[in-house]
Amino acid sequence: MSGYGFRVFFVLLLLQPLYVFASAESQNQAIDSNTKTLIETATLLREQGLQSDRAWSLVEALTTQVGPRLAGTEANERAVAWAKSVLEKGGFDRVWLEPIAFPIWLRHQEKARVIGDYAQPLAITALGYSGSTEGEIKGEVVRFENLQQFEKASKAAVKNKIVFVNQTTARAKDGSGYGNSVPLRYKGSIVAKEKGAAALLIRSLGTSHHRFPHTGATTRIESPVPAAALSNPDADQLVRLLALGKPIYVALDISVSIQKQGKSFNVIAQIDGASEPEKIILMGAHLDSWDLGTGAIDDGAGVGITVAAAELIASQVKRPKRSIRLVLFGNEEQGLWGAKQYVEAHKDEMANHVYASESDFGAGKVWRFDVEDTAVQVLIMPLLSPLGIDVGVEPPTSGGPDIKPLKKAGVNVFRLKQDGTDYFDFHHTADDTLDKVDPEGLKQNVAAWAVVMYMLANR
Amino acid sequence: MSGYGFRVFFVLLLLQPLYVFASAESQNQAIDSNTKTLIETATLLREQGLQSDRAWSLVEALTTQVGPRLAGTEANERAVAWAKSVLEKGGFDRVWLEPIAFPIWLRHQEKARVIGDYAQPLAITALGYSGSTEGEIKGEVVRFENLQQFEKASKAAVKNKIVFVNQTTARAKDGSGYGNSVPLRYKGSIVAKEKGAAALLIRSLGTSHHRFPHTGATTRIESPVPAAALSNPDADQLVRLLALGKPIYVALDISVSIQKQGKSFNVIAQIDGASEPEKIILMGAHLDSWDLGTGAIDDGAGVGITVAAAELIASQVKRPKRSIRLVLFGNEEQGLWGAKQYVEAHKDEMANHVYASESDFGAGKVWRFDVEDTAVQVLIMPLLSPLGIDVGVEPPTSGGPDIKPLKKAGVNVFRLKQDGTDYFDFHHTADDTLDKVDPEGLKQNVAAWAVVMYMLANR
Repeated sequence: MSGYGFRVFFVLLLLQPLYVFASAESQNQAIDSNTKTLIETATLLREQGLQSDRAWSLVEALTTQVGPRLAGTEANERAVAWAKSVLEKGGFDRVWLEPIAFPIWLRHQEKARVIGDYAQPLAITALGYSGSTEGEIKGEVVRFENLQQFEKASKAAVKNKIVFVNQTTARAKDGSGYGNSVPLRYKGSIVAKEKGAAALLIRSLGTSHHRFPHTGATTRIESPVPAAALSNPDADQLVRLLALGKPIYVALDISVSIQKQGKSFNVIAQIDGASEPEKIILMGAHLDSWDLGTGAIDDGAGVGITVAAAELIASQVKRPKRSIRLVLFGNEEQGLWGAKQYVEAHKDEMANHVYASESDFGAGKVWRFDVEDTAVQVLIMPLLSPLGIDVGVEPPTSGGPDIKPLKKAGVNVFRLKQDGTDYFDFHHTADDTLDKVDPEGLKQNVAAWAVVMYMLANR
Repeated sequence: MSGYGFRVFFVLLLLQPLYVFASAESQNQAIDSNTKTLIETATLLREQGLQSDRAWSLVEALTTQVGPRLAGTEANERAVAWAKSVLEKGGFDRVWLEPIAFPIWLRHQEKARVIGDYAQPLAITALGYSGSTEGEIKGEVVRFENLQQFEKASKAAVKNKIVFVNQTTARAKDGSGYGNSVPLRYKGSIVAKEKGAAALLIRSLGTSHHRFPHTGATTRIESPVPAAALSNPDADQLVRLLALGKPIYVALDISVSIQKQGKSFNVIAQIDGASEPEKIILMGAHLDSWDLGTGAIDDGAGVGITVAAAELIASQVKRPKRSIRLVLFGNEEQGLWGAKQYVEAHKDEMANHVYASESDFGAGKVWRFDVEDTAVQVLIMPLLSPLGIDVGVEPPTSGGPDIKPLKKAGVNVFRLKQDGTDYFDFHHTADDTLDKVDPEGLKQNVAAWAVVMYMLANR
């Protein structure tokens, strides 16, 4: 038994009460020689991951050389070329592009100012699929505390007004604060249009107290009203101004456009399985980003983590049993266009997708392995525990944004749930830049991904 | 002896080794009954200051109702009217306005982008008195590490280039990091013009790793080159891009203008001295702000602190011996215009200005009382020590930005030096908003200012 194998075996012994092994005897039977070899290799991959700067180098390169890369833009073309070039040198058995098409929503100008006695600018950013104001519009501000209160409002209370919804986003390790507030962004512009609002302003769906408004897609509808987010300090300011007791009027100048013929690619690399090549374990991240920051935590980090982890596995002489497919989805931000078109293009092999997951939650350390299959838990958790990772299934995971269409198509999913305590300080803002990425967090993620992918592809 | 008096007396006894009292006997002689009464009252003022939300209310009102208030703008007129109204209700013996005139530098547009293979936007803000680009200009970036290196560069190395000076600003409690880097801003545009640079980009003179470029005045010269600051993350990005080894070209579009006939006011309130009314102890703050944030730490905090402290003293039935004059300077940011014109307008009574100081360093707690006169130290330090304040004279204090012209005219100055560890995270950026003000810090500042002003006006 090698040093690695011995360490892993020892860890398994220590952890066995957690995983309901009946006895040392049955455990010894469970760990047959194949499994021992797998565990040795996975342990090696984990230790290599923990030592590797590769993910950082990738995030640095993508965010520096390309920067913001909204799907369908010239910068996004450069991101695709960059990713293809990286993957072609990454030791994979095949690398290919799959074209995707979508409408591109483009931001041109976004200005807001309080007018009248308290005249002053407000920091806003338009939400994806917002309408334009077609020049400056002015309206009285009417405030609601959250989406539910806005939905209950009478049309008379809203018509021709600039609606301000002051819903806050709570800081949470698991991102549940954003989960709770994001329906406001998706549905707010629908409600605003139904009730005849002149425009919609929402408090940013972020946890930063810095003055960065937070973008993100609303639901794409015909003739949408102008919709934008105020930074948290600006939302606070509007609350204070409204509390002064006089009507508050705001002028908005939002100019956006839609190009119907947007194109990009899902960039895909594969390690072909040795004995069951048709069986696919899919790992993903998304290559596109919003236009405001350089897409470092969202999702440069995920690109760096998954590419680095896949490269580690590809560097092994022996191929895994099943294929490992890395998909860098081409358009997540504007509505999962890359993922939906992946499922459509691969519908005939959907049943061969054994597992799928995405890294799209920054560079925070993984703290939980979400997977429902207890056999998978028992096999893999001893390898993840030394990384500080626990196991869980509640609430059931989506596998990540781009994995939702795969899950809907029946694919099993897992998630390496990351610590998102500060993720929504930066996510979808101009402040999403390389310095917000934790290099140590990246390493731990790479280690965890390498372990899970290797074990799922070989068990 | 009242409870307050006893406490103060006890504190004096405890602190006496610090202040070189020869013996308990001489101390008893030093603390005559007048001094005891003064100390009792000053202690009362201190305790009232520590309990008071008044400074917060003032900062909140000014930054909410007015917001950014660049001298000479409509918003600045509202700030003057607000301050006059506040002071007229503040219990002062007289409140008046003194007109000041200056050129107004106005920001209209500021855009920067890397062009070519690594095309991407950069977050910049124009520096005060920057020139315009008159449409978009493009140039190759040439990097220098600091002002000194830039000054030594040959004209050939700089001519028609976009100069990037990458000088960093260190975080420091006493603001010395900014003190070290600010000559770059003052002199950089002079050097850039002399050497024929197309434009100047400097790393922001700030300590924030958030994406806020940091404005501030350069030296006003004829036909200045366009000059702007990159946010720290954008300066990092430019460093990384230059490290890729290819020439980097940047396009700049900066539109600014100068209005020659700017007007505003120094807003002044006075508590008339009872026995020596012609003798003036001057306390100041500045009412104007830069245009990017709402001027909360710079210098809404100083306005709140000094007004609240002066109001406390004005609320006493008995007037101090000497006059206390509160000056809210009308234009500090664009070049101490308010202070210079105050000195000019009051040159005949300069000799009657006994002491002067300004609060213009945010809301951080005071940690040192900078004053050279040891008799003043001995008298006042026992009252400040319970606030966690030490005494110091090195390096000699300017008294604050707007006090420099008074010091130059021969007036004694002191400073209540504040903890500025995080001041340059927000100073001169869009992120200088109310939420960055520490309410507890404000209270401690009010207490310290009330003590010092009261004692200096009465000793």
